[in-house]
Amino acid sequence: MDLQLPRGMRDFPPEEKILRDEVIAILKNLFELYGFSPLETPVVERWEALSAKYSGGEEILKETFKLTDQGGRQLGLRYDLTVPLARFVGMNPTIKRPFKRYQIGTVYRDGPIKKGRTREFYQCDADIVGSSSPLADAECVQLALDVFERFKIDVVVKINNRKVLYELVRAAQIPEKFTEAAILSLDKLDKIGPDEVIREMVERGIERTSAERFLSGAQDPQAFKNSEGYRELEPVLSALRDSRVVWTPSLARGLSYYTGTIYEVYAKDSSVTGSLAAGGRYDNMIGQFLGGTEKIPAVGISFGLEPILEVLKEQRRDLPLRKTVTQVYVIPFKTLVAEGRAVCQRLRRAGIKTDIDFSAKGISDGLKYANAYAIPFVVIVGPDEVAQGKVKLRDMRSGEEQLLTVEEVARQVAQRLS
Amino acid sequence: MDLQLPRGMRDFPPEEKILRDEVIAILKNLFELYGFSPLETPVVERWEALSAKYSGGEEILKETFKLTDQGGRQLGLRYDLTVPLARFVGMNPTIKRPFKRYQIGTVYRDGPIKKGRTREFYQCDADIVGSSSPLADAECVQLALDVFERFKIDVVVKINNRKVLYELVRAAQIPEKFTEAAILSLDKLDKIGPDEVIREMVERGIERTSAERFLSGAQDPQAFKNSEGYRELEPVLSALRDSRVVWTPSLARGLSYYTGTIYEVYAKDSSVTGSLAAGGRYDNMIGQFLGGTEKIPAVGISFGLEPILEVLKEQRRDLPLRKTVTQVYVIPFKTLVAEGRAVCQRLRRAGIKTDIDFSAKGISDGLKYANAYAIPFVVIVGPDEVAQGKVKLRDMRSGEEQLLTVEEVARQVAQRLS
Repeated sequence: MDLQLPRGMRDFPPEEKILRDEVIAILKNLFELYGFSPLETPVVERWEALSAKYSGGEEILKETFKLTDQGGRQLGLRYDLTVPLARFVGMNPTIKRPFKRYQIGTVYRDGPIKKGRTREFYQCDADIVGSSSPLADAECVQLALDVFERFKIDVVVKINNRKVLYELVRAAQIPEKFTEAAILSLDKLDKIGPDEVIREMVERGIERTSAERFLSGAQDPQAFKNSEGYRELEPVLSALRDSRVVWTPSLARGLSYYTGTIYEVYAKDSSVTGSLAAGGRYDNMIGQFLGGTEKIPAVGISFGLEPILEVLKEQRRDLPLRKTVTQVYVIPFKTLVAEGRAVCQRLRRAGIKTDIDFSAKGISDGLKYANAYAIPFVVIVGPDEVAQGKVKLRDMRSGEEQLLTVEEVARQVAQRLS
Repeated sequence: MDLQLPRGMRDFPPEEKILRDEVIAILKNLFELYGFSPLETPVVERWEALSAKYSGGEEILKETFKLTDQGGRQLGLRYDLTVPLARFVGMNPTIKRPFKRYQIGTVYRDGPIKKGRTREFYQCDADIVGSSSPLADAECVQLALDVFERFKIDVVVKINNRKVLYELVRAAQIPEKFTEAAILSLDKLDKIGPDEVIREMVERGIERTSAERFLSGAQDPQAFKNSEGYRELEPVLSALRDSRVVWTPSLARGLSYYTGTIYEVYAKDSSVTGSLAAGGRYDNMIGQFLGGTEKIPAVGISFGLEPILEVLKEQRRDLPLRKTVTQVYVIPFKTLVAEGRAVCQRLRRAGIKTDIDFSAKGISDGLKYANAYAIPFVVIVGPDEVAQGKVKLRDMRSGEEQLLTVEEVARQVAQRLS
C-alpha cells in the first residue's frame, strides 16, 4: 500500500508530542488558575450549526469538511471552538453566568496549505460568557501575559476597540460602504507599510485625502482619546497598567463578530511574525447565533499552539526534543529477567518512568537501544550486583557507573532529572 | 435555530470533563511509567488506509464516516488507533524497535446507538511494536493491573491464547469451515450460558456431539495444558504470577487480527458487565497491512474511558462531580475592585485556582454565584479588611469565616483541599 497521510494532516511522533503535551499542560494549568473550567464538545457538528448566520461566515464555510451519517444527516468538522461554545450555551440555558470555560482541541479547515498551516490544528480558547464588564476583557489579556511569562516569551499585546475604527472611518469622511474595505486595508499596516495601505484603499475606491486622513488618525492615539471606543478601552488599560499592552488604533482583527475591545499578542525579537494569541469582545454573536432576542455579552482569547511551539523552538534552542518519556532502561542479564522485572516494578512504584529490555540480547545491545532513544539512565541487573542486593546505575551522558540499591537509584534519578 | 448535537455525539460540561481529565491524566501517567511515549495521529485518515485489507474489516468499514477534501481525495474518520499506528510504523521504518507508544484519542463509528455507546468515543491504547517476547504480553497485563489498582477498582483479567481455541476446535472434530462460527458462539458463553452456546452452534451446522465436546474442552483448563497455545501462555502467566489473572479457554476477543495471547479486564462486583480494557498479540497485522514480507510482531492493550468512568461513578458515589475548577471566589466591595484583582493575582501566583466577581452586585449576589458553582472558598475584600491588610476567608461548606492575610489564605486553602 502507498503509505501517506491525508494532505494537510500531520503525525506527531513522541519527540514532538512530548513537547506539545508539556505546552498544553501549561496552558491548561493557567486557564484553571484563572477559574476557567474545561468543556469538551464533539469534533463533528451539525451542518446547520456550522453554517448558521453569524457563525464563521462564508470564507470559513467554504473550507469546512462536510460529511453525512448513515441516516443521511448533514454534518461537518468544527472549524473553530467558538460556534460549539455558542451552541452549548444555547442548549444549556440554565448555566449560571458568567460562564467561564476553556477548550483545547483540534479544528479542521479544508483550505490551502501554507507554511506552518495544516488542515487539522489546535485551538486553545478561554471565554467568559455573560459579563459586559471591561474587567472581563482585562482578565483575558492578563491571562495572556501570565501564559507568556510562564513560557519565558517576551511579548507585546496590541489592543484596540472596534468602535475606535468606526470613528476613524467617520472622521476621515470615508463613505459608509467603504468601511469594511478601509479597515481591512488598515489591518495590513504592519505587513505592507503605509504607502501600500493608501494605494490599496485608493484602488478600492476611497479618495486619497480620506485614505490619508484615516491612516494618520490611526497612527495618532492622542487624537482619539475622547472617542467612545477609547472610553471603553480605557478601563481595560488602567486595570492592566502594563507597559507590554500598547494601544494600537490600527488593529482590526478581521471583520467578523468582534464588537468591542480586541487584542493580539506578538512575540518580541522573533522571526515568528504572526500572532501567538488573539481575541476580543463579541457581544452579539452568541445571542444572534441562537436567534433569540437576548443579548449575551462575551469575551475570549484564543492561543495558537503551533506559533507558540515555533517561538519556543526558536528562542530556546536548548529545548529538549525527547525521543521517549523513559528515564531508566533496565537491562537484566539473560538469566535474571525475573529480577530485572522486579527492579523495574519497584522503580515504577517510586514514580520513575522505566522500561525494560527482555530481548536477552545482552548488555551492549541494550545500551545501544538506550542510546538510540537518548534514555538518560540505564540500570544493569547482573549476578554480582544481585548477590549484593544492588544494581548498577549508569549515567548515559557521563558514562559514570555506581553500585546502588534500587531505592538509591530512584532517589538519584529523581534528583538528577529535576 | 433548532439546537441539537449530531446523533450519537455528546458534550462534556465541566462537571463531567473535570473528572474525565483526571482519569485521562492517571492513564497518561501510568502509560509513561511503563515507558510508553505519546504519539498523536490525525483524526482524518485516507480512505485507502482505513479500508486496507487486514485493517478493521468489513463490519467496521460499514460504520466508518467518509468524507472528501476539496481536491476530491477520499478520506475517513479513524475508527480505532491501531490502523493509524500501523501506518505510522510503515511510514517511519527507521524507528528503533521495540517501539512503545500510547495514544489517547477519539475514534468514530457511524453505527447504531446503544446504551453507553456513542459515535465519538475515546480509546486509550498502549502498544509495543517489534517484540515477540511473552514478557511484552505480560507488561501489558501488568500495566492494566496497575491502572486499576490506581483507580481502586477490583478486577479480574481473563486471559487466553488464540491457538488454544484452534486446538479446541480440532480436538472437538469441528470441520474447519465452522472454526470461526464455533469460536464466535463460544465467546458468548458468559452472556448467554452453555445451553444457548450449544444451540447456536448446532443451528450453524455443527454436530451436537462436536459442539458439546468443544464446550466442555473450553471449560476444562487442565485438558489443554500440553497444547501449543498453553505453552505460549504459560510464560506470560508465570511472569505475572497474580491471582487476578485467570486462564479462560473460552475467551476469543472476536476474530480479527489477534494471533496469540489475548486478555480482557472486567470489574468485580459491578453492574458494568462489559470489559474495561482488552488487548492481545497481533503479530501479522502490521506487516500484512504494510503489504511487505516483513513480520512485525506487536502486542497492545486498549482501555475504554467510558466503562472506566461508569464503574468509578458506580463504586465511588462520593466521587465529586465538580461544577468548576475554581477553588476560591474573590468578592470585592464595589469600590475595591482593584484591590480585589490584586488579591486574586496573588492567590493565582500561589497556585490557587481563583476567580473574581467584578459585577459589583454586592456580597450576597457573589455568595449566590459561588454557591451555584459549589466553589469551596470565598474571599471577601472589604474596607475593614483592607484597612488591616487582610481579607475575610469564608469556608462555604461550614460557613466559618476568618480574618487572614492573603498568604495565610493561600496556605489554608491549599491545606484544606489537599
